[in-house]
Amino acid sequence: MAVYTHVSAEQIAQFLTRFDVGTLLSAKGIAEGVENSNYMIEASRGRFILTLYEKRVDPADLPFFLGLMNHLADAHLPVPRALEDRAGDTLHDLAGRKACLIQFLPGLSVSEPTLAQCKAVGRALARLHMASASFGMARTNSLTLPGWARLANATRAHADAVSAGLRALIDTSLANLGQAWPSDLPRCAIHADLFPDNVLLLGDDVTGLIDFYFACTDFAAYDLAVTLAAWAFSPDGAVHHDGRAAALVEGYESVRPLSVAEQAALPLLAQGAALRFTLTRLYDWVNTPAGALVTRKDPMAFARRLQFYRAASPATVCGQA
Amino acid sequence: MAVYTHVSAEQIAQFLTRFDVGTLLSAKGIAEGVENSNYMIEASRGRFILTLYEKRVDPADLPFFLGLMNHLADAHLPVPRALEDRAGDTLHDLAGRKACLIQFLPGLSVSEPTLAQCKAVGRALARLHMASASFGMARTNSLTLPGWARLANATRAHADAVSAGLRALIDTSLANLGQAWPSDLPRCAIHADLFPDNVLLLGDDVTGLIDFYFACTDFAAYDLAVTLAAWAFSPDGAVHHDGRAAALVEGYESVRPLSVAEQAALPLLAQGAALRFTLTRLYDWVNTPAGALVTRKDPMAFARRLQFYRAASPATVCGQA
Repeated sequence: MAVYTHVSAEQIAQFLTRFDVGTLLSAKGIAEGVENSNYMIEASRGRFILTLYEKRVDPADLPFFLGLMNHLADAHLPVPRALEDRAGDTLHDLAGRKACLIQFLPGLSVSEPTLAQCKAVGRALARLHMASASFGMARTNSLTLPGWARLANATRAHADAVSAGLRALIDTSLANLGQAWPSDLPRCAIHADLFPDNVLLLGDDVTGLIDFYFACTDFAAYDLAVTLAAWAFSPDGAVHHDGRAAALVEGYESVRPLSVAEQAALPLLAQGAALRFTLTRLYDWVNTPAGALVTRKDPMAFARRLQFYRAASPATVCGQA
Repeated sequence: MAVYTHVSAEQIAQFLTRFDVGTLLSAKGIAEGVENSNYMIEASRGRFILTLYEKRVDPADLPFFLGLMNHLADAHLPVPRALEDRAGDTLHDLAGRKACLIQFLPGLSVSEPTLAQCKAVGRALARLHMASASFGMARTNSLTLPGWARLANATRAHADAVSAGLRALIDTSLANLGQAWPSDLPRCAIHADLFPDNVLLLGDDVTGLIDFYFACTDFAAYDLAVTLAAWAFSPDGAVHHDGRAAALVEGYESVRPLSVAEQAALPLLAQGAALRFTLTRLYDWVNTPAGALVTRKDPMAFARRLQFYRAASPATVCGQA
């Protein structure tokens, strides 16, 4: 939520000369994206987001992320395009960081989505999965079972200090998921982090799907489970909004109906999604000093979702119980 | 350099209905302004900065700041206008803060100003002083001699730990300025903080004078001295750029020639300006934990300027020695 790498106006103006975007008119550091530094750029031929990739992003993953964004934009998804410079490159070096100039898309990240908005997000996610099936690159999901086990090991000693019983909840869930996690569901490139922050809306229309920096190759239905966990609860995870879940699934299935196996796997996939964010938030909570530049997010908000999904049927996950 | 108060898209959309600016299309928190929270707003009828005033700004001062901005905008200075809502109010309540919707101005804050840019900034500052002379409100400068003495007392025990000799430099300078500070120079509403960060430029044209939250009623020539201290040195204060200082004064005097008394007072006024930023930076340095949300600025960058000005003639301050 901050600009970590400062780039001067003169550096940005010089950088823009690589592209066919005209001259620089305005540049403001924006406080979005937990992982990277972002500037909102106005040039005489358009508006853009300049992203500088900070240490949490592995430069080796950037061709996958940027390639997927452009593949989806080519398929007319509302995904911002990574601009090619005159040499055809999308990935650049600026101020000691890998950097990219990305199309600006209008739209708002809502805090209290309406049912119509949830339905539109479900449709957009399904369209993303349909289009990404033809994307030629692959990236292993580093935040699935082996990654969860590593995070659980790294945080186990601190979990009960955050909340009594959290350690047992994580260990039990991890053991269950390790035994029962599916292996044969349809796979494609997935967003894997489609929270409201990463969706732009104007009214009921999705105008932007952004921040593909956790994208990877995994089950399409897992991506739906992540999106349900992100959209269908109160922020603290205490209240499940059945209507939002149902609208999201209805929108999704209007474009890409779930198979019987996908439907049956939803409770496990949703537990996995909730465990993933419980663990990454717990890791950051334990490793981020209070008052630091990054705002810590409460891991219990997703531990509560995990508890909800541990008791849920497929119909419950879909808000149709 | 961060967004301290989070406002949801829904709250911003609701807030905009008070104005005649159309519907909300985009809102991004921007990482500018050390003191306040700022959002860059696009609505269907224009672009704006939404500012939420944080605890360092006294709400009682806001009518002066916003009134001055609109007075200067009325006089065709490139100053962003604080928008009136349909009831004619510029100052509002939002998310527990005083808030204001401010016109967006294009332009860039440069890091390495050219001589033509320095001259343009000098002209713009003089025009500001000519126009502000007819502004009807007054605000005492809280960061002049009595304020400096308070800051010196609050930091005296820590000054030499920051840099050996800093305590003596501050105390000697404060004693000298206390005896010799002028009392009868021309006064008007001044910006008092016209650093490159607070000036927007396109090429050699000043397109924006922003961030009036230290504005007050004081000597016009003191404002010129602040601006010289801000623009005519390398960032660390070690190198004085005579050409930049000369260009700035030349631009200023092309609009508002300095009186003999103002010229003679410039070394003292410049010492005061350098002492002011030495002291506020030292205070923040001592009171801000390392790694906190606000980036600490090195007080020595202005202590070096103070030493330069203590040995300077009027011609030296103006880069004409």
